[in-house]
Amino acid sequence: MIHAYAAMKPGAELEPFEYDPGELGVDEVEIAVEHCGICHSDLSMVDNEWGSSQFPLVPGHEVVGTVAAVGAAVTNLKEGDKAGLGWQSGYCLACDACRDGDHNLCMTAQGTIRGHHGGFADRVRAQSTSVVKLPAGIDANSAGPLFCAGITVFNPLLEFDIKPTAKVAVIGIGGLGHLALQFLHAWGCKVTAFTSSESKKGEALELGADDIINSRDPEQIAQADSRFDLIISTVAVNLDWKLYTSTLRPKGRLHFVGATTKPLGISVFDLMARQRSISGSPVGSPAAIAKMLEFAVQHDIKPVIESYSFDQINEAMARVRSGEARYRVVLSRH
Amino acid sequence: MIHAYAAMKPGAELEPFEYDPGELGVDEVEIAVEHCGICHSDLSMVDNEWGSSQFPLVPGHEVVGTVAAVGAAVTNLKEGDKAGLGWQSGYCLACDACRDGDHNLCMTAQGTIRGHHGGFADRVRAQSTSVVKLPAGIDANSAGPLFCAGITVFNPLLEFDIKPTAKVAVIGIGGLGHLALQFLHAWGCKVTAFTSSESKKGEALELGADDIINSRDPEQIAQADSRFDLIISTVAVNLDWKLYTSTLRPKGRLHFVGATTKPLGISVFDLMARQRSISGSPVGSPAAIAKMLEFAVQHDIKPVIESYSFDQINEAMARVRSGEARYRVVLSRH
Repeated sequence: MIHAYAAMKPGAELEPFEYDPGELGVDEVEIAVEHCGICHSDLSMVDNEWGSSQFPLVPGHEVVGTVAAVGAAVTNLKEGDKAGLGWQSGYCLACDACRDGDHNLCMTAQGTIRGHHGGFADRVRAQSTSVVKLPAGIDANSAGPLFCAGITVFNPLLEFDIKPTAKVAVIGIGGLGHLALQFLHAWGCKVTAFTSSESKKGEALELGADDIINSRDPEQIAQADSRFDLIISTVAVNLDWKLYTSTLRPKGRLHFVGATTKPLGISVFDLMARQRSISGSPVGSPAAIAKMLEFAVQHDIKPVIESYSFDQINEAMARVRSGEARYRVVLSRH
Repeated sequence: MIHAYAAMKPGAELEPFEYDPGELGVDEVEIAVEHCGICHSDLSMVDNEWGSSQFPLVPGHEVVGTVAAVGAAVTNLKEGDKAGLGWQSGYCLACDACRDGDHNLCMTAQGTIRGHHGGFADRVRAQSTSVVKLPAGIDANSAGPLFCAGITVFNPLLEFDIKPTAKVAVIGIGGLGHLALQFLHAWGCKVTAFTSSESKKGEALELGADDIINSRDPEQIAQADSRFDLIISTVAVNLDWKLYTSTLRPKGRLHFVGATTKPLGISVFDLMARQRSISGSPVGSPAAIAKMLEFAVQHDIKPVIESYSFDQINEAMARVRSGEARYRVVLSRH
């Protein structure tokens, strides 16, 4: 039996929950969970915000642990390996996206916490392709958030061939944004942080921002006219995207990794004269995750975390819900 | 004196108009105009649709002719060269975009018919950088429209590194779209034409489309779910862009070269799961125009034109205004 924490119905507190995972699939690995980050989407899924949750629901998709068992066909991992698991726990391996190495865009990818029990547990299972070995030298204690928050902001740098000469802005300095600042600084870019939080300004500079713009001050934003090659938006609120688009240089891109629900309010004339692009992306492929982890080790990039034990799980969830965490909450088996 | 045709006020018919162009600038060339295409934006400028027109206004920005004079500093052209001129007749040559070779994105580019007298005239002047020599073997009679309609649809293929394995759709089979079909077919792509015109279906297939979708039939469009790597929209009407976005493959791009004015109605969720992009672009750089002209010669790509003489200019303008022209109207000095 796997000993987990589950929400038994939408919006419920988490409670102990046991389930029998059955026989290990030939292509699966079982991870003994040592750490698991809490992502805002764990809350959204518990709350059934997107209407796709199934209960009992075991959240947790920023898993770090030790491989405890591997199926007969698994070749990329062995028992005892330190490894991690993110938002997706399996892929079809047959569609164009999978065959192109873009597993994260597989339309039938298995979610880790959707129709599958996640990492708030002593063990979790996943298709071996979705589990990535930790590189030597990484801090396992804080590595969990790299598997969702980290890869989500790192992936665009690979995908859009961002060069160190680029000027890049990050909107929202939270779980995702504080990692984006670190990655971009290490990438060699000039980095601007858009934040509405006065109290985060000093920290943003320490994390790698070269300058700060108040994300709620239209005049300050307008002054950044045609400055950025790339803007990565990590926020889940509706901002004046037309105004943000005006801060893009020729061929610049406004890229969303945070999901806002309303139409963006952008028209062709905002894009055409300067050949600007608007786009979005979800997490990243296993190959991209592996590259990110190595890059993080090389540049000493770490999630800034608040640590809780698994039996403080509801307290930890409440801390994420408060929006006050600096910057990511991680459950650890101390 | 230059003998031109001008609109003396917004919406007016064109009438003979003479002006003294003064001394030829050291970086300028003067072209003896032999052919000039009529673009829908000539009408928009005559009508002052965008509020930026200056009168008397001499339209015409799809110019083909013979270089009649060159300034002292001009090195890329000489008297007697056959050459063409498009939407832009000069660049700052100093901004980042110009230095990157993206002259078409220069924010202080000189328009050919905005604050400058265009090609509905016996002669027209332009900065030499903006004038491109015709390659040997091109049909000068029909080449004019390549300088605006042609480059506008060709440029995205260069800019977005479109491969011959791509599946590409074109929305709107008119002056721009009929050239896009020819370019894309020669590029090796599988080409889909979106058109609302029953009568254009057969012609679209002849121009290079592999299949046709009715652009006003939501069911037919929905069946193209996740099919296209690139969609080029040439239309100036508001369509259901959310629906069109759903026909993009992972990493697909909906690219606008036709200007619609209303917000696009697209939200982050339309882009994120499949890493889709929305973008726009204007014309192309002189280097891109030169590449396009060579490609057109190599693949025998020609604008399909209706030919008028310069003294039929108002009749020709009315023909463009009717929307019935197949597919581009060109004035010629017969």
